[in-house]
Amino acid sequence: MLDAALLGTGGMMPLPWRFLTSLLLRFDGRLVMVDCGEGTQITLKLLGWGYKNLDAICFTHFHADHIAGLPGLLLTVGNSGREEPLTLVGPPGMGVVARSLCVIAQELPFEVNIVELPFERGSPPRCLTLGDFHIAALPVDHRIPCFAYAFEFKRAGRFDTEKAHLNKVPMKAWNRLQKYETVVLDGFAYTPEMVLGPPRTPIKAAYCTDTRPVKGLANFVKGSDLFICEGLHGDADALAKTAAHKHMIFQEAAAIAKAGGVNELWLTHFSPAMTNPENYIDAAKAVFPNSRVGKDRMTATINYRKE
Amino acid sequence: MLDAALLGTGGMMPLPWRFLTSLLLRFDGRLVMVDCGEGTQITLKLLGWGYKNLDAICFTHFHADHIAGLPGLLLTVGNSGREEPLTLVGPPGMGVVARSLCVIAQELPFEVNIVELPFERGSPPRCLTLGDFHIAALPVDHRIPCFAYAFEFKRAGRFDTEKAHLNKVPMKAWNRLQKYETVVLDGFAYTPEMVLGPPRTPIKAAYCTDTRPVKGLANFVKGSDLFICEGLHGDADALAKTAAHKHMIFQEAAAIAKAGGVNELWLTHFSPAMTNPENYIDAAKAVFPNSRVGKDRMTATINYRKE
Repeated sequence: MLDAALLGTGGMMPLPWRFLTSLLLRFDGRLVMVDCGEGTQITLKLLGWGYKNLDAICFTHFHADHIAGLPGLLLTVGNSGREEPLTLVGPPGMGVVARSLCVIAQELPFEVNIVELPFERGSPPRCLTLGDFHIAALPVDHRIPCFAYAFEFKRAGRFDTEKAHLNKVPMKAWNRLQKYETVVLDGFAYTPEMVLGPPRTPIKAAYCTDTRPVKGLANFVKGSDLFICEGLHGDADALAKTAAHKHMIFQEAAAIAKAGGVNELWLTHFSPAMTNPENYIDAAKAVFPNSRVGKDRMTATINYRKE
Repeated sequence: MLDAALLGTGGMMPLPWRFLTSLLLRFDGRLVMVDCGEGTQITLKLLGWGYKNLDAICFTHFHADHIAGLPGLLLTVGNSGREEPLTLVGPPGMGVVARSLCVIAQELPFEVNIVELPFERGSPPRCLTLGDFHIAALPVDHRIPCFAYAFEFKRAGRFDTEKAHLNKVPMKAWNRLQKYETVVLDGFAYTPEMVLGPPRTPIKAAYCTDTRPVKGLANFVKGSDLFICEGLHGDADALAKTAAHKHMIFQEAAAIAKAGGVNELWLTHFSPAMTNPENYIDAAKAVFPNSRVGKDRMTATINYRKE
């Protein structure tokens, strides 16, 4: 079961009525965040999922509205009693930017690990695994290097008694094999594949802000249970200026959701000038019916499919 | 006339119901801020005094809750159309810290001037003048170098017709002399002192957070119309732990207000653990009756005295 919370839905600057766009994912009690602008720790407190289990923050890019909240959040996570390392993932420069911002957060009670993902436009997604979080990052097209992220939570195949018997797996190994461990008995190694059917459909959530539509993006988000995507403006007339700043409008996000065959689209990263994004949701729905306007602290619980 | 707004009243971390402690002063349309933590630009937006006329930010010290909002605020001031330079004033290291934080705010449409004030405990206040703002900074006693600030807005003496005649000042020079200009007529220089009485009482506002009480502090805030001072805790039982972290409790702030003979004390910089500071105000009032619990965006308008 995955819990997803959209911590904020604004772009450019935090507003009294709208925090900056950020996503929090919770799986088996562990937390991973995407982006952390000024004020993200405030909406995080309102959400109430705690700070201590935050294992990683993935950054799309280094514009201030996506990262200025980093030092404050790290200090607050430190005050929560965390001592395990925390990982920061982002484009090249992640280390320099994090160290610069942390000039005012130098005495943290945990280590900060830095993962800088190489950025090459048109290259296939980069992948890394942090606990149960299988993370993929796709280079997209903004004014500075920027990634879209996809998170998969894998699910092993169903236990197959017949297969276990066929492979002569002793029953005392079954339980651990089912938990995806390899078991050695009497000098013989038994692997999970010997008792399990084919892997079942993973849970998938994808997140994309601050880009023009790029080739490969629909494929990258393919089959997502939840796709969170920017719609800086809802008005189609704003396309030219939105494109000039390397952003997307509602209809473009909806077109990616449709092409990717996702289950649900949440729009986010609204311009401060767009006071009521609901006014434009019909334009998105016309392209992809299951589109919703994101709200601060909107949450979803996503279960594995019945199969 | 001086307008003062307490933008926030919290210490340590921004809370959904309490922004971090920061002061905004407005005199003749120009703005000067003291401290800028994470989220200060949000409460500034709620206040509605605008961004464009912000000429300077004075920093007490470089703990994150006093400065983490700097890059975001500078970007927002830039978006407001400001092109005039903006001055940052603070303890030694001001330049390094500002440049580090601004790794994510590199393309500002205005210059940033840095004023680093030497920090020597026990030394007299350092003074600088920015427009009508006469600023003094007193080294105080925190875990890192920290200043208390006082702001004076001077007022020339009353026009004295008798004195002008006595000094044989031609009438056509009077108007400019009254505006504190020096006027040269027929090769003779006339100075404002030749037509004006003694300077009248200035408006004074003082601001002090994150320190133990120090010698000279009461004298530094002497005669302030408004004294804004930290009270991290209200409970006298919290004194030992508060002092250990180099902070003050309500009663200590009130004692400084009393010794300094200020007109009014606003308490601020409340611990996140203190949910209702009003519960402790009587302890402060017992020492200094005109004590008030600060609230976010509490404002005061201070006029020159009748004299």
